Amino acid sequence: MKLVTFSAGAGDRVGLVEAAAVRDVTGLLPAGTGVLELVERWDELGPVLTSRAGGLEPVPLESVRLRAPIPVPRRNVFCVGKNYRDHVAEFGRSGYDTPGRSEALPDKPILFSKATTSVTGPFDEVSAHPGVTAELDYEGELGVIIGRGGRGISRADAFEHVWGYTIVNDVTARDLQRDHKQWLLGKSLDTHCPMGPYAVTADEVPDVTALELETSVNGESRQLALVKDLIFDIPELIATLSAGITLLPGDIIATGTPAGVGIGFEPPKFLRRGDVVEVSVSGLGALRNRIA
Amino acid sequence: MKLVTFSAGAGDRVGLVEAAAVRDVTGLLPAGTGVLELVERWDELGPVLTSRAGGLEPVPLESVRLRAPIPVPRRNVFCVGKNYRDHVAEFGRSGYDTPGRSEALPDKPILFSKATTSVTGPFDEVSAHPGVTAELDYEGELGVIIGRGGRGISRADAFEHVWGYTIVNDVTARDLQRDHKQWLLGKSLDTHCPMGPYAVTADEVPDVTALELETSVNGESRQLALVKDLIFDIPELIATLSAGITLLPGDIIATGTPAGVGIGFEPPKFLRRGDVVEVSVSGLGALRNRIA
Repeated sequence: MKLVTFSAGAGDRVGLVEAAAVRDVTGLLPAGTGVLELVERWDELGPVLTSRAGGLEPVPLESVRLRAPIPVPRRNVFCVGKNYRDHVAEFGRSGYDTPGRSEALPDKPILFSKATTSVTGPFDEVSAHPGVTAELDYEGELGVIIGRGGRGISRADAFEHVWGYTIVNDVTARDLQRDHKQWLLGKSLDTHCPMGPYAVTADEVPDVTALELETSVNGESRQLALVKDLIFDIPELIATLSAGITLLPGDIIATGTPAGVGIGFEPPKFLRRGDVVEVSVSGLGALRNRIA
Repeated sequence: MKLVTFSAGAGDRVGLVEAAAVRDVTGLLPAGTGVLELVERWDELGPVLTSRAGGLEPVPLESVRLRAPIPVPRRNVFCVGKNYRDHVAEFGRSGYDTPGRSEALPDKPILFSKATTSVTGPFDEVSAHPGVTAELDYEGELGVIIGRGGRGISRADAFEHVWGYTIVNDVTARDLQRDHKQWLLGKSLDTHCPMGPYAVTADEVPDVTALELETSVNGESRQLALVKDLIFDIPELIATLSAGITLLPGDIIATGTPAGVGIGFEPPKFLRRGDVVEVSVSGLGALRNRIA
């Protein structure tokens, strides 16, 4: 299933997408249930959608305004740095990495977070934050949505805790990322986490490693990679995080970005107002955000 | 006012503390109001407490089990690294800092976060997480609680956005902090953010810079500092964070730790099971947590 959150009049609605149409399933769910609560109570509520959504009238998907599937996560988005080989090299060469110009592969996952208020819709404008940053960059990523929470999840059990997938653009203010050493600030400016367009259940993705991710800027392809090229794969990320941190239903893990970000070029290609960044993942749709 | 969250039977209660007694004010508040919601609606609900709490029967504070004043923050706790001069030097010398052995003062605040699930009560046990970390350390800190949210908050206006204060022990797994480069993981293990015992309104703290922080381990004093010795003071932290991130009511900012952490000693004095760490701040009470 492909779930969306969309706004209509007062308040958010939950939608179920099929082809280019969406069915508003909000009325089938207990009051106040958004996608986050739906993920949390999936065993109970998923079957309700399966059995009853078909009776609802579909409307064209393009007629609604999509928000991020989980517009207000219950805590910061977990993120992974330097998790594709060629990106490690370009980041090392760029001089923006914190421990200096290292092109060595990390031997453990580099984990940081994006503030909840950075989350924005799949087609919303991304603020350039003039006066705050002058070095705006994109990072197309596969996002994992945790279903059943837990601690001490083994590699072998990891996929049992994955509810599904989405796309994240881990927009980054490179100057803040570099100057403040730890990455939270440079990763967390308002609107710098476009997400969506769908939350896609894991059963629609038989082999996540086969997914292909592509990022383009103004139609020019910049990033192209397969999820199988992750240095630390999804089971490893879940095992590492959950060793000492209880993962919660609805937690989002942005798995890292491949080579081709703006600072990978010489000179760097930073984003400018008016640029349109598109991030697509096979089967998961595409984000398309204009820099404003 | 000194507010607490305490558990009694089913569910959390909100309490108002005076001397060694607490009044259960939950019944004066709309259903479902915890300290987080109280901070958010303070202009409306604060006066209710002022006018009506006096009529309630006090019970001894020691008779209730305190939780963190905000047991489940709405997002990760904002934290500041290397924000006291002498701690910068000890951290640099220790070899645990990420960009290597630098004793240079940071020229911009170093910002990171602790996951929500690390928050625990002021007198609860802190898990040693054997098998996950072998290098457990303490960091006593003053915590700032944001009242009115906002973005682009100036230094001059910063204190208008401070609801009050609390104490945080930014417990740290030093091996994870070092090995994973970014600090999120090493800072976020379950129970590694003892907080409280009170959420104290700003009007009870006429000059926050005069507050004195002390940390002891098994009764031995380890950290002793004045808040005025922060490198980046509270207005600077709020201005820096809010320049591009919308701060929310109830956001917590742990302002950094002074010299005297375990890795400041040679050899390092890591925490062991059975150790008791106490962090006190003048006027704000004390945390006391046993390592289990």
